[in-house]
Amino acid sequence: MRLSRYFLPILKETPKEAEIVSHRLMLRAGMIRQQSAGIYSWLPLGKRVLNKIERIVEEEQARAGAIQLLMPTLQPADLWRESGRYDAYGKEMLRITDRQDRDMLYGPTNEEMITDIFRSYVRSYKDLPLNLYHIQWKFRDEVRPRFGVMRGREFLMKDAYSFDLDQEKAVESYNRMFVSYLRTYKRMGLTAIPMKAETGPIGGDLSHEFIVLAETGESEVYCHKDFLEKETPGLDVDFNGDLTPIVEDWTSLYAATEDVVDRADFEASVPEEKRIVARGIEVGQTFYFGTKYSEPMGAKVATSDGKEVPVHMGSYGIGVSRLLGAIIEASHDDNGIIWPVEVAPFHVGLVNLKPGDALTDPVCEDLYAKLEAAGIEVLYDDTDNRAGAKFATMDLIGLPFQVVAGPRGLKDGLLEVKERKTGEKEMLTVEATLAKLQAALTL
Amino acid sequence: MRLSRYFLPILKETPKEAEIVSHRLMLRAGMIRQQSAGIYSWLPLGKRVLNKIERIVEEEQARAGAIQLLMPTLQPADLWRESGRYDAYGKEMLRITDRQDRDMLYGPTNEEMITDIFRSYVRSYKDLPLNLYHIQWKFRDEVRPRFGVMRGREFLMKDAYSFDLDQEKAVESYNRMFVSYLRTYKRMGLTAIPMKAETGPIGGDLSHEFIVLAETGESEVYCHKDFLEKETPGLDVDFNGDLTPIVEDWTSLYAATEDVVDRADFEASVPEEKRIVARGIEVGQTFYFGTKYSEPMGAKVATSDGKEVPVHMGSYGIGVSRLLGAIIEASHDDNGIIWPVEVAPFHVGLVNLKPGDALTDPVCEDLYAKLEAAGIEVLYDDTDNRAGAKFATMDLIGLPFQVVAGPRGLKDGLLEVKERKTGEKEMLTVEATLAKLQAALTL
Repeated sequence: MRLSRYFLPILKETPKEAEIVSHRLMLRAGMIRQQSAGIYSWLPLGKRVLNKIERIVEEEQARAGAIQLLMPTLQPADLWRESGRYDAYGKEMLRITDRQDRDMLYGPTNEEMITDIFRSYVRSYKDLPLNLYHIQWKFRDEVRPRFGVMRGREFLMKDAYSFDLDQEKAVESYNRMFVSYLRTYKRMGLTAIPMKAETGPIGGDLSHEFIVLAETGESEVYCHKDFLEKETPGLDVDFNGDLTPIVEDWTSLYAATEDVVDRADFEASVPEEKRIVARGIEVGQTFYFGTKYSEPMGAKVATSDGKEVPVHMGSYGIGVSRLLGAIIEASHDDNGIIWPVEVAPFHVGLVNLKPGDALTDPVCEDLYAKLEAAGIEVLYDDTDNRAGAKFATMDLIGLPFQVVAGPRGLKDGLLEVKERKTGEKEMLTVEATLAKLQAALTL
Repeated sequence: MRLSRYFLPILKETPKEAEIVSHRLMLRAGMIRQQSAGIYSWLPLGKRVLNKIERIVEEEQARAGAIQLLMPTLQPADLWRESGRYDAYGKEMLRITDRQDRDMLYGPTNEEMITDIFRSYVRSYKDLPLNLYHIQWKFRDEVRPRFGVMRGREFLMKDAYSFDLDQEKAVESYNRMFVSYLRTYKRMGLTAIPMKAETGPIGGDLSHEFIVLAETGESEVYCHKDFLEKETPGLDVDFNGDLTPIVEDWTSLYAATEDVVDRADFEASVPEEKRIVARGIEVGQTFYFGTKYSEPMGAKVATSDGKEVPVHMGSYGIGVSRLLGAIIEASHDDNGIIWPVEVAPFHVGLVNLKPGDALTDPVCEDLYAKLEAAGIEVLYDDTDNRAGAKFATMDLIGLPFQVVAGPRGLKDGLLEVKERKTGEKEMLTVEATLAKLQAALTL
């Protein structure tokens, strides 16, 4: 993408309303724009990152056997009356009346609707296990939306729902999502720690919050330091096999949020030098809640001996839009964002220091074409801005690599290649630049 | 994808509420489920097609220079008060009050919000031309939602917005979208005819509706038969060049919807044997409306001589969710849907006539793995259903190719390969099957 034809509205000043660094950086880097309290437009750079996060989530959900569908944003109130949550949900639920005076709502979550879909079609244990998920915009009318996309009102969530014949099978489904979550976050450069959690309005008795440690996290968490060194299940993990050992390994160390922590227990089970008490950002939550929805809503299946039983369910959320904030909180410096390669909006920023120059133009055009042909995504700064502004923008938007083409270096046939994360710079020929980037960015 | 692990709820009976064939087939093929009047869930098979259509739209928008962002579904009413459309829009607009008693609405379109984004960041003619688009769910509270996804209330639309310094430049932007639309529809197997159209609530004085001919179309259209033979601009079309000749070629023949047709004009300009009077489905509309929004909303740019002028705008919609209905209306037979390859949910249906058989199982597993490795998407029917039901399902869901593995054919090492569109069947070896499918499906 040529910057001269792109839409990247960088802000020079730090917006006053932004209290935390991810919110500030997303506004400054032209990634989002607030349209109303807690409601954002995703400007092109933000949208690209959102897309990448969605793709990773989709890939890992598919790997774990979840099947994608898409439920609408608006739901009929009647479904929620069946489960009893319509009155219970409170003011966070955005209630809407349509032109025929029907009670509707903007879905804050989808347990009711997916249960309705399930009961409409599935009759037999033979069709189980089943895990259906979607990635859809939700709305929760927070009293005090803040922290940018971290606590917005309109937000993008991945929510999966598992259906099983009994608790034992349901726990197998739960474990598949649990392991899939570890992989999902790791691919985004995050270490997410599964912590015992309260189940809240979803209900149920088995639940984990997946927490990323960050100074600006909304809640206090208590956990064992060894989590930070744990190895994430690799590509070879068999989702058809027994995942219990992995789940046990990841739940054997103490980890709890402030809502459920038992301090005495924490201190008894974690040696002092291994204790972490820190702030954390919740980036996902898993629930097993049995027949909480299937029972009142009549979602039953026939067993192998012909009985009808309510199906056992779980639900599994990932805060897709919030993840952008969490990644930035975990990965930035004073100059701006530092994107992990897999979620970076572009892989390389190519800076032409003197557009129109007989040396820089052809080299940049050639390199731009070759990188793109190699599947490397390039933001090519071909604008007339001054060098200092170009460098500052590249640092701010945090692409993994910067390549700078100036008349001086090119007299000797050299480009400057900088890795954003380390700040390391090298002067390389065009060929060496291409080789280095291809080696580093082969995903 | 193994059918035994998929969620494909085929309906045996034809749903009574469905008046048109695409609605019937989408319900029967387990693609959609109505959750409320005009509001649908996209079941896995439907979601896959929706994704493919989105990808084509994205690729062609990018090719034409449009940049993707994403605006939220909910908008503040104040923006629409600025343009004067809040009161004018009527009951089709879903009006919402949030917990702080703020007037909101579920966006039926985005001219106001994109104008707000533009005016917040863009100041100079140097940043033009600019074309920003998104693909987002919209809501229009139709009095009588019907025809399934063809006239739903919650629907997915691609809407692009162009910004230019003056009318001449704006028409160039208009032409880029015009040409891009021809390519977009053609890639989905549709011939969309650009027709003179009324501008309606969007406003403006240059507008085309893109219409697909179909018996079940909602409006009557009048056009020249030669449209059906016209060649669509190819991959080599230069969106940086002058597109006027292409647009003139595609607008030189008579084509108008019933709203604007002048019958005398139609008969005078089209020889009798070339006249088409038929029903049509609108799959997109383009508008140039000048300063209709930029003027009241103060979206101005500085010209090269320092003056400030309101920016000239256009908007360009594609009915993404409605396109599934339109494609099915245009491509089906008595047995079901016939998907064009580019939008097919899977490319190949692989039918194992006898799962558990020592001959069919290994051949199917091997072919399944090889096809997937070749980038061909396979729905592998490994279920215990009887043969007749398997064939009927495959015809109904309309994948371009079916491969049937039965013990009888495999005794001679042969599979049956059927092309859905023509119904032609061949008995081929596994190797020949693989070669044929790779040749036919290399996209």
